[in-house]
Amino acid sequence: MSDCPLCASDGGALIVRTPRWRLIRVTDTPAFPAFYRVIWNAHVAELSDLTPAERAECLDTVVAVERLLRERLTPTKINLAALGNVVPHLHWHVVARFDWDSHFPQPLWAAPVREADPARLAELARALPALDADMRRIGAPG
Amino acid sequence: MSDCPLCASDGGALIVRTPRWRLIRVTDTPAFPAFYRVIWNAHVAELSDLTPAERAECLDTVVAVERLLRERLTPTKINLAALGNVVPHLHWHVVARFDWDSHFPQPLWAAPVREADPARLAELARALPALDADMRRIGAPG
Repeated sequence: MSDCPLCASDGGALIVRTPRWRLIRVTDTPAFPAFYRVIWNAHVAELSDLTPAERAECLDTVVAVERLLRERLTPTKINLAALGNVVPHLHWHVVARFDWDSHFPQPLWAAPVREADPARLAELARALPALDADMRRIGAPG
Repeated sequence: MSDCPLCASDGGALIVRTPRWRLIRVTDTPAFPAFYRVIWNAHVAELSDLTPAERAECLDTVVAVERLLRERLTPTKINLAALGNVVPHLHWHVVARFDWDSHFPQPLWAAPVREADPARLAELARALPALDADMRRIGAPG
């Protein structure tokens, strides 16, 4: 699908690529620094387009990302979503949400409810290199 | 958790209840009539709080709902999300989206981009009783 942006490019800062999926960190949403995406490499639109084994591999990866976010950042909540209305190529948003963030408790796609504390955003950004390093081990053998 | 609305009540129009999860249809979002929720009965916040077997059962249910929505309504896209910022009790939104709906291609939590055609909304509403009947077979033995 040459006109699909998730077929034409990584779709973000590449963390891990495996034969079936890749993990990227989303870098164009400054209000949500701890925002990763699990992208299925093949161009399928819906979760139910995967075989049961593929689906398990995809969701195991989503859960591994969720676990690392919880362990390393202790977020108020994890948000998971597979929408794909704009880019109908299966990808999972995995986002660490904090009670101080600009939208909490609203979804990140809603209107902001406050200005996030820049010091806390900066602290989160400082944690990302170590978090990315941990994320790189997802899907590694052993 | 007596202060949790998803512990205190079904949380919508009950379609199926099993020992571990229930399926409800969301009835308070008139712009999205084909909106179901898979609610995990136990009060856990995150997908990664489930065991692998529980997680598989939960996601198999989500996928079964997705499949029926696709088969019966041919939506433009399925939207899946587990957010829980307001009610941190694991529940999955499974929503049939249409290119004519009030928000498409935006997420349902964003601002509307148009007024949905009342005739199409009414047509969708007329399909719900048969769809609910199909949904009731999810999780049934055999």
